[in-house]
Amino acid sequence: MKKEIYFDNASTTPVRGDVLDAMLPYFSEKYGNPGSMHSKGLDALKAMYGARKKVANYLNCEDKEIIFTGSGTESTNLAILGFARKKKKGHVIVSAIEHHAVLHPALRLKEEGFEVTVLNVDNDGLISLDELEKSIKNNTILVSINYANNEIGTIQEISNIGEICHKHNVIFHTDACQATPYLDLDVEKLNVDMMTLNGSKLNGPKGVGVLYIKKGIELEPLIYGGGQENNLRSGTENVPLIVGFAKALEIARENRVENYRHVLKLSKKLTRGLFKIPNCQINGSTERRLPNNVNFSFLNVEGEALILLLNEEGIYVSTASACSSKSLEPSHVLMAIGLKPEVAHGSLRFTLNWFNTEEEVEYVIQKVTEVVNKLRRISAMEGV
Amino acid sequence: MKKEIYFDNASTTPVRGDVLDAMLPYFSEKYGNPGSMHSKGLDALKAMYGARKKVANYLNCEDKEIIFTGSGTESTNLAILGFARKKKKGHVIVSAIEHHAVLHPALRLKEEGFEVTVLNVDNDGLISLDELEKSIKNNTILVSINYANNEIGTIQEISNIGEICHKHNVIFHTDACQATPYLDLDVEKLNVDMMTLNGSKLNGPKGVGVLYIKKGIELEPLIYGGGQENNLRSGTENVPLIVGFAKALEIARENRVENYRHVLKLSKKLTRGLFKIPNCQINGSTERRLPNNVNFSFLNVEGEALILLLNEEGIYVSTASACSSKSLEPSHVLMAIGLKPEVAHGSLRFTLNWFNTEEEVEYVIQKVTEVVNKLRRISAMEGV
Repeated sequence: MKKEIYFDNASTTPVRGDVLDAMLPYFSEKYGNPGSMHSKGLDALKAMYGARKKVANYLNCEDKEIIFTGSGTESTNLAILGFARKKKKGHVIVSAIEHHAVLHPALRLKEEGFEVTVLNVDNDGLISLDELEKSIKNNTILVSINYANNEIGTIQEISNIGEICHKHNVIFHTDACQATPYLDLDVEKLNVDMMTLNGSKLNGPKGVGVLYIKKGIELEPLIYGGGQENNLRSGTENVPLIVGFAKALEIARENRVENYRHVLKLSKKLTRGLFKIPNCQINGSTERRLPNNVNFSFLNVEGEALILLLNEEGIYVSTASACSSKSLEPSHVLMAIGLKPEVAHGSLRFTLNWFNTEEEVEYVIQKVTEVVNKLRRISAMEGV
Repeated sequence: MKKEIYFDNASTTPVRGDVLDAMLPYFSEKYGNPGSMHSKGLDALKAMYGARKKVANYLNCEDKEIIFTGSGTESTNLAILGFARKKKKGHVIVSAIEHHAVLHPALRLKEEGFEVTVLNVDNDGLISLDELEKSIKNNTILVSINYANNEIGTIQEISNIGEICHKHNVIFHTDACQATPYLDLDVEKLNVDMMTLNGSKLNGPKGVGVLYIKKGIELEPLIYGGGQENNLRSGTENVPLIVGFAKALEIARENRVENYRHVLKLSKKLTRGLFKIPNCQINGSTERRLPNNVNFSFLNVEGEALILLLNEEGIYVSTASACSSKSLEPSHVLMAIGLKPEVAHGSLRFTLNWFNTEEEVEYVIQKVTEVVNKLRRISAMEGV
């Protein structure tokens, strides 16, 4: 059997066997519509209640503050477009290294007449709290800052950001999709008013997201109809995937410390190994970083070529986020932290998970070294 | 084991075993993000291509005219809100018996400054083609009419409606969620420009819908981000559910004639049996009707009480659509076809599927008769 080493867990993750097992009864046996009055519907409704309660528990909030959506992207859109459209006008602040699922709704708001400020970040990928506070104006309604970045793993000072927002009566949303398996999710401690989670980054199913919405906050729905999810997200509830999400979150939170240590050990080993390759650099913060993220640039090498050659060795990694990996533009995140386009183009993102092993890391170090050397030899010959 | 008779297939359907089998590999094995450049991503992308091709084939359209969404409701919202917002202004026509997933976006458009006409229907639930044509104005941009109604099964004259729309250069969308397993889906023959399908009404998974969009039609997305689905629906594609949708559609279409005959035979038997109960009426058309839909009103009985007592006998039916079944308002569909509120309140919807049997129909006739009689006795005693 072909060797398969999956180091692209920020793109998506496999559904764990125990998560799939939890979902299975809801496809063909307990298949009712939670809106139906009979037992079949009631069984589905109970499953929804249980899942919502579980998620609320891990976020330290009330059940009714949890909305299930169809993806992390839908959650960020509901938070940003939904909140701003309800307010009808105002000023919104995001950072330059947000995921497109935050940046693009923010740009859409601009077209709809809202003001939008995009905060710069430093070389580590951190926003400046001073700059954030200075950018808040009388008409500022919303700040949306990534909890941990999907490309370079930089962890923002979420609790402090929330404090600044609240001092100025501004609502604070954070995209916590990448942070979910590893960082604190207590919405009280984090000072967040809205928070996005995503099943597919959590060894749960694709196609299900969560939006935490602190009570009292009003949103305009993106999707209108039967009034499900407290009138905020119409459409028959996706019971199996919602159950799967809650199960995946439960397992991730219960194994959090152990998994954190495991992937941190692996990523340190990987980082040490890759640094032996000449003319390379690590991108992002060495201090405030997700434990499973390693992002390197190899000078004079094309990231796409690296991915394709590593793929032949059964190693799956990426350049930027999966959503934009096929675009020829250099990553907006790497550009924002000050990389030159040619350095950004030679970057690779390795994102680890609980199932990865030391042996895999050793193999990856060996193969990346070989492949970088090979590409540089070709490139040098072409340059002659 | 408790007897279970599910006659509520317009609310949602169980996922077929063979559909679930088709989906399973994509949760934990072929779990890649279709946006990733490596083999894991490519496998997912190939599965998406295959599913899209299959769906396009059954609709007689091009692959690129098929968009996968998170639900039927999301598809209708994308069609209606997306098209109107792109046009920025104009007049939209819907019918009075549309699903809330069409009516509520239309009402939202009104708030956004669009003009909206709601067409009346006759006692059968049919719109008048004359009235439709007369209601088209110079600024009419969109007509959205249900292919087959979810409560009473009435089948509109879709092809003729499309012809009228096109004569006046108006775009025509139809919600075909209930029609999908039984009626013609050829978008050319139907003269439709946009069409909504839904996995959960098709013995496929919940949480996946399709929107057919004829090429050349431009829509404003509901959800912005990574640019998936031709920039119309951002968010990681839900590969397992998309594969499941295509498989469910394939099976439904291949078995269409056989299933049509089967449910028609059962619904005729059910109708004959129920008519033996005194003081009842069938709601909707006897001619232009989905073969699996039976909707009856029993005078002097509350539909909710019927549902609960039938539930105790293991029979699962509904009053109106699952989305509004818990509301105390009488069904807007039954009111639109001229029922008095008290008659609408005493209604039951039976919706059949391929797995239902003659024995089940006989048992349901027997139990409905008993339960209606019981409730009428109680009601008569209370009246003394």
